[in-house]
Amino acid sequence: MDHLGELKTEELGLFIDLYELTMAQAYHSEQLEDRALFTLHFRKLPEQRNFMLACGQHYAALLATALRFPPEQLEHLASLDVFTDDFLQWLGNFRFTGDIRVLPEGTPVFPHEPLLEVEAPLIEGQLLETLLMNYVSTETVLASKAVRMVIAAEGRSVVDFGMRRMHGYDAALRGVRAYRTAGLAATSNVLGSLRYGLPANGTMAHSYIQAYKDEMEAFRHYARLYPGTTLLVDTYDTIKGVDKVIRLVKEEGFEVGAIRLDSGDLAELARASRKRLDEAGLDQIRIVVSSGLDEWSMQEIIDAGAPVDGFGVGTKLGVSEDAPAIDLAYKLTEYRKEPRLKNSPGKKLLPGRKQVWRFRDAHGCYSYDEICRDTEQRDGESLLVTVVRNGEPVGPEPDIEESRERVKRALDEMGPAMLALDRAEKDYDIRISEELDQLYREALEAVSENGSDNRG
Amino acid sequence: MDHLGELKTEELGLFIDLYELTMAQAYHSEQLEDRALFTLHFRKLPEQRNFMLACGQHYAALLATALRFPPEQLEHLASLDVFTDDFLQWLGNFRFTGDIRVLPEGTPVFPHEPLLEVEAPLIEGQLLETLLMNYVSTETVLASKAVRMVIAAEGRSVVDFGMRRMHGYDAALRGVRAYRTAGLAATSNVLGSLRYGLPANGTMAHSYIQAYKDEMEAFRHYARLYPGTTLLVDTYDTIKGVDKVIRLVKEEGFEVGAIRLDSGDLAELARASRKRLDEAGLDQIRIVVSSGLDEWSMQEIIDAGAPVDGFGVGTKLGVSEDAPAIDLAYKLTEYRKEPRLKNSPGKKLLPGRKQVWRFRDAHGCYSYDEICRDTEQRDGESLLVTVVRNGEPVGPEPDIEESRERVKRALDEMGPAMLALDRAEKDYDIRISEELDQLYREALEAVSENGSDNRG
Repeated sequence: MDHLGELKTEELGLFIDLYELTMAQAYHSEQLEDRALFTLHFRKLPEQRNFMLACGQHYAALLATALRFPPEQLEHLASLDVFTDDFLQWLGNFRFTGDIRVLPEGTPVFPHEPLLEVEAPLIEGQLLETLLMNYVSTETVLASKAVRMVIAAEGRSVVDFGMRRMHGYDAALRGVRAYRTAGLAATSNVLGSLRYGLPANGTMAHSYIQAYKDEMEAFRHYARLYPGTTLLVDTYDTIKGVDKVIRLVKEEGFEVGAIRLDSGDLAELARASRKRLDEAGLDQIRIVVSSGLDEWSMQEIIDAGAPVDGFGVGTKLGVSEDAPAIDLAYKLTEYRKEPRLKNSPGKKLLPGRKQVWRFRDAHGCYSYDEICRDTEQRDGESLLVTVVRNGEPVGPEPDIEESRERVKRALDEMGPAMLALDRAEKDYDIRISEELDQLYREALEAVSENGSDNRG
Repeated sequence: MDHLGELKTEELGLFIDLYELTMAQAYHSEQLEDRALFTLHFRKLPEQRNFMLACGQHYAALLATALRFPPEQLEHLASLDVFTDDFLQWLGNFRFTGDIRVLPEGTPVFPHEPLLEVEAPLIEGQLLETLLMNYVSTETVLASKAVRMVIAAEGRSVVDFGMRRMHGYDAALRGVRAYRTAGLAATSNVLGSLRYGLPANGTMAHSYIQAYKDEMEAFRHYARLYPGTTLLVDTYDTIKGVDKVIRLVKEEGFEVGAIRLDSGDLAELARASRKRLDEAGLDQIRIVVSSGLDEWSMQEIIDAGAPVDGFGVGTKLGVSEDAPAIDLAYKLTEYRKEPRLKNSPGKKLLPGRKQVWRFRDAHGCYSYDEICRDTEQRDGESLLVTVVRNGEPVGPEPDIEESRERVKRALDEMGPAMLALDRAEKDYDIRISEELDQLYREALEAVSENGSDNRG
């Protein structure tokens, strides 16, 4: 038995909610094959957020072009006794043939704005739902949490130590891509680092110190092997640990880059450690702190004036503790060129092909967004770009460094209210164009007519 | 480029925090090769929980025996410029040679109780940390949330619809195993169902209804294809939707198994729908509800006396919304046969090889647990079992159905206070044996001596 439980590319088609396949079979049998439009968006920001960073959607679109149902997977499906031979044969020939437009990786995104739109024959669009949502949710949730820590750190380095408590290896690995995009400095995750080019970083665990009878001996040995390393000083007594580091450097000539504090009153201990290090003339030794940090506790440490040079963040980043999910949804918004809507009181859904225009003020700062029909032209920046056309990737693949630059620029262009950790008093101004609103009202009317239909 | 980002078995060794490898190299160069004991446990329950279900640890132990560092991975590591040829060569020959004891899959577990203990040469134990923690965290978090929903449902079926917003595919897939263990009835996750034997289940999405001009036509077509299916009735107007289902069955002779309500006041709509169905003589048609449910809202619906037969749960299960992580830790607790501890005020760590004994009262109900040294004998049920000896799996592989039975039995044996959704006034009684406590105090003294050491 395979205890790793990896997902192989050839199994991708079965990484799907059953109803996508039963609906697809129904469409197939009814020959509902006209083009449809699906919109991936969310309706509400998590309570304490002012924006989300859209991440994963470009990669997800590219992955969709690789979706296949090879014979072995069709056999699995046949075993469920739900699918006809005719449909399974159709699935065996499945290729995505549609178009996908996405927000570039790392784009700040707001409620009702499409992260992605799929235009394709109805069945094809339907079959992508689960895969796209799972894939995009994961990176968007993680990048959106990570960027808050980057903001809170006010220029200090933020390093990801969280893989051990993340939800499985897929989140832990692709999380590193999201973290690099969001602006983290490094990760402890070796494979993630190798795959996604965020520098690998690590210090030592308490167990390392404990394995030696003597803390000094543990420090000495580590510093000999890794000149310039970071030493974890709080296994027994933090201040005595700092004193040992000072002796190691001053008396024994070792090179130490930083100390790490991982317990106790971090601000207080950072101040005391800094004082001792400076008095010893070791102002080049940096202080990094960790231990259950999130963006709020990081902000507190900085507000307390603690001389901290970097943060190691773990679990609260890795599971996006305050908002482990967003209400991302993938909705049918057009079929046979007609707008489609579900009648959900209070849940506004914008029909048809859309474009998001972002406007900046005279200082280059975010001013407002306008969601328009895609046929409208505006004098701002249009955000959605086509990355898949007729089932084939078009344009360059995303470059993570470019995505990171995009986030960096966005942080410069969003005002302080948007960058605050708490929800701004006034939400970012998202406008809906007159034409789109008109379409929305027409679609709503069509829905009411349908809803009042009594016979069918 | 590979956009799926799957983890291949041969890459498993690099799914690791960098410091595990740098510490391992340090141990290797110092020939710190004596046997060590590592304990996987947590110190605190999430705020609203009375117990956790330990899941994943047996599989994780088996996976550890497959850990290798093939040549291609060693090349990746060499590229980091941190590792010596000598160490990389050693890694190339790495095989886990130690012993692992675990709680059986699905065992209720409490603070300080080992979910797993590794006894192995120090380096080997260290190299397993990240993998074990990530793997066990994922399933334990998900199973522990799922079982609360099973409890809240009071015998009604609970179906997993959550894969789309879970953190990546690994969590979504192994989550199905955790859900089956916890007692869910079915999952929408096709591949998860095929892998882990939880029945696949699904209804339809609103987009399916919307794709048809007419709701009745959509229902008719689906019921024709899938006799006995569940129809989603709330796309336009819930009660009108129910009336259409009634006509479909009564006038057109279709077979419908259930209706699903996915918006609005679920308890109220369930009552109104039940009334209409019953008046039409269709008491065999079940009512299932979904829409952002968690264990509390399920309980409310049941407490309101709503005639609900089943629940579809999604995001709040899939990310374990109220407690997306636990403070699982993997700690060195013995080295060279001597207990080891980190000196953390308020963070009790139990040293040495341990056994957990579970005691039941005269009615067969949980009475208390006693954590003992593994050399002690008690008259209760001993929980930790050896599943890996000298690097080889021993005993049968876990059987998911047996794990599910174990959970079911446990729910019968835990009293109502433990099964309540809110934290019980009194925590479950976890005792520490006198011998273990004695060892703990000795270890603490040794720590203090080490901490007061000033020269090393």
